[in-house]
Amino acid sequence: MLPPIETDALVIGAGPVGLFQVFQLGLQGFHAHVVDTLPAVGGQCLALYPDKPIYDIPGLPVCTGRELADRLLLQTKPFAPTFHLSQEVAEVAQQPDGRWLLQTTVGTRFLTRTVFIAAGVGAFVARSLRLEGIQAFEDQQVHYQAPEPETLAGQRVVINGADETAVQAAVDAANQKRSGLNAPRSVTLLHRKDVFEAPAPLLAELAALRAADALRVTVGQAVGLQTHDSTPGPRLTGLQIATADDEELTLPVDQLLVFLGLAPRLGPLVNWGLAMERKLLPVDPVSCGTELPGIFAVGDINHYPGKRKLILCGFHEATMAAFAAAQWLSPGQAPVRLQYTTTSTQLQQRLGVAPGPRH
Amino acid sequence: MLPPIETDALVIGAGPVGLFQVFQLGLQGFHAHVVDTLPAVGGQCLALYPDKPIYDIPGLPVCTGRELADRLLLQTKPFAPTFHLSQEVAEVAQQPDGRWLLQTTVGTRFLTRTVFIAAGVGAFVARSLRLEGIQAFEDQQVHYQAPEPETLAGQRVVINGADETAVQAAVDAANQKRSGLNAPRSVTLLHRKDVFEAPAPLLAELAALRAADALRVTVGQAVGLQTHDSTPGPRLTGLQIATADDEELTLPVDQLLVFLGLAPRLGPLVNWGLAMERKLLPVDPVSCGTELPGIFAVGDINHYPGKRKLILCGFHEATMAAFAAAQWLSPGQAPVRLQYTTTSTQLQQRLGVAPGPRH
Ligand SMILES: Cc1cc2nc3c(=O)[nH]c(=O)nc-3n(C[C@H](O)[C@H](O)[C@H](O)COP(=O)(O)OP(=O)(O)OC[C@H]3O[C@@H](n4cnc5c(N)ncnc54)[C@H](O)[C@@H]3O)c2cc1C
Ligand SMILES: Cc1cc2nc3c(=O)[nH]c(=O)nc-3n(C[C@H](O)[C@H](O)[C@H](O)COP(=O)(O)OP(=O)(O)OC[C@H]3O[C@@H](n4cnc5c(N)ncnc54)[C@H](O)[C@@H]3O)c2cc1C
Repeated sequence: MLPPIETDALVIGAGPVGLFQVFQLGLQGFHAHVVDTLPAVGGQCLALYPDKPIYDIPGLPVCTGRELADRLLLQTKPFAPTFHLSQEVAEVAQQPDGRWLLQTTVGTRFLTRTVFIAAGVGAFVARSLRLEGIQAFEDQQVHYQAPEPETLAGQRVVINGADETAVQAAVDAANQKRSGLNAPRSVTLLHRKDVFEAPAPLLAELAALRAADALRVTVGQAVGLQTHDSTPGPRLTGLQIATADDEELTLPVDQLLVFLGLAPRLGPLVNWGLAMERKLLPVDPVSCGTELPGIFAVGDINHYPGKRKLILCGFHEATMAAFAAAQWLSPGQAPVRLQYTTTSTQLQQRLGVAPGPRH
Repeated sequence: MLPPIETDALVIGAGPVGLFQVFQLGLQGFHAHVVDTLPAVGGQCLALYPDKPIYDIPGLPVCTGRELADRLLLQTKPFAPTFHLSQEVAEVAQQPDGRWLLQTTVGTRFLTRTVFIAAGVGAFVARSLRLEGIQAFEDQQVHYQAPEPETLAGQRVVINGADETAVQAAVDAANQKRSGLNAPRSVTLLHRKDVFEAPAPLLAELAALRAADALRVTVGQAVGLQTHDSTPGPRLTGLQIATADDEELTLPVDQLLVFLGLAPRLGPLVNWGLAMERKLLPVDPVSCGTELPGIFAVGDINHYPGKRKLILCGFHEATMAAFAAAQWLSPGQAPVRLQYTTTSTQLQQRLGVAPGPRH
């Protein structure tokens, strides 16, 4: 096992508030590591409404979820945060020296003096298809991420979903069938309505492939599995489908690709020994500190009297937490004083816009 | 006397926080009137550092003071606030029905159910020249705003100051002298150093006029007045100047234009019956309410445990105050619920981006 990464600050969650936490820690002179289950930063803004407009970010009369994420990421650049994406913080344990040891689902470990839980409404994970016994087939025949092209060669492929990822996977598989290389035996796109959400050119490609019989759309909902005993273990052979007309049909399947979007999951956080109230972490609004020393909570995940789950409130909370953490990281030192980015040479050096050392 | 303007909300101060207060009140369905002593909106950002960069507005990696003010003003547009500029709120008195009656220095009166004090570090007013007895000459011979050109005709004009306004006034007077129409007898620009802060073209014009002897620069500091008894009253005849070499000289003067920049003045606020602590208004951070019912305080002027005088914190405070005020304005109604600008038809109608009524 590799030794843990030693750091002053670990931010759990790269949503808008986690990103601004990185920025405020940077102003205070601290570099941060950031973990998120998603492969990209932006939290809910990117996962749930990337192309929808937000109107209440102060100074930005309108911006999309994706644009806000991009802007916040750009703002953290001077502080060069280290992102550890596509992994979930799974465990937290206090060390004898007071530091916190954290471990992610892919084994990355951190030894840190402060933790900022910016976990929002939970870790975003692919929404799973809830069918009795389906887990047994995961990785072999059921996939929540597009598998290697060879996996689909000669197979009856069913793609379940209606968003851009689902449509793209269906189009890719159909093109693979037409190309002849690793060609699947059949490609079926399954959704409860014949309505798909994807950029217009992709929808046009889907329509063309349907017209050319390179893929088929089945309208209905998966309600059960058809399996077959075999060696070395049972095989998934079909999906039981309820159609809109209350008919049942069985769709033969060798490889099932499930793209039902993302859902937040509070996950392991609930086992970290932190008091939770209705799935939220109570904090002191002066510091956004939890009851555990060195652990702060900011953004949608926290609670204090009057709390509003708004992005701009999270920005304020991250600022309060950064000041409190700076004090905590320099015990016995003079109170951290307020400086303006407009006039402070020290802050401007940290921002990389004034000549001189960054720390 | 005109009847007072009746309104739900009066915002005192059009700084960044006052502007965002207008926006948040608008989201809650309330129109606001706004008063500021300055002729333009933006508060400290515009008055003290219009062209300097701010780096810590979330989502705006860099913007100038002026740009932030412009952006916030644009964001209030859907709510069509009514601005009452170049006037100071001078008096506040509670009415028998619980509403507040306010009056400005130019006599505008408001009868309002809620007041939002976003007065920052105080009302910005022209910094005065502190010389014994100078008040007696104000308006006649001493001016804090450029007087009509005729006032300078045949006069020995001294302009005291070094910023753009001062340099512009000196250049204007010198050009007036050269034009021959209402020509002053002499034009002197007085400052303690031979360094002026103005855009390059204006500085070039100043240099050209100096070279052409159309104006003179005197380096030194005004330390006293020379006056002359006359009818109908005493006249100002000269300024006593201390030079850098500790010499004293007397500068003859008939008209003195003083442009020493803006200074904040807490002003009449201190007499409104509100408890103040070290020139700040203590509030409950949950509502930003003061101890007077319906009066809220937000931004630099308020205080609560952990308060940081930062713009982004003021944005959060304005949001808390708007929620609390909405509740206060609809007593006995269900708690005001959180809505997202991204998804709420009601908010989008108020913002004017969804079809339908605004209220
Ligand atoms: C449709 C919609 C519209 C909205 N519109 C607005 C609006 O107009 N204005 C507004 O202010 N707000 C709006 N919101 C709310 C806003 O998106 C949230 O307040 C904001 O995203 C909260 O930011 P956050 O950083 O606290 O959390 P999130 O954005 O939820 O980000 C948390 C991140 O933490 C990660 N995470 C959680 N646990 C772990 C773990 N154990 N390990 C690793 N990673 C983890 C998650 O994967 C996620 O990426 C809207 C929300 C929705 C759903
Ligand atoms: C040089 C400098 C650099 C700064 N840099 C930063 C920075 O990088 N980041 C940051 O977050 N902050 C910065 N600040 C602080 C920031 O400018 C203030 O926090 C912010 O302006 C406060 O906003 P406000 O709306 O509360 O008050 P103000 O901006 O002070 O506005 C208050 C307004 O109220 C008016 N007013 C007051 N009393 C009355 C009355 N009785 N009647 C009518 N009008 C009245 C005033 O004329 C004024 O226009 C800086 C400040 C300075 C001076």
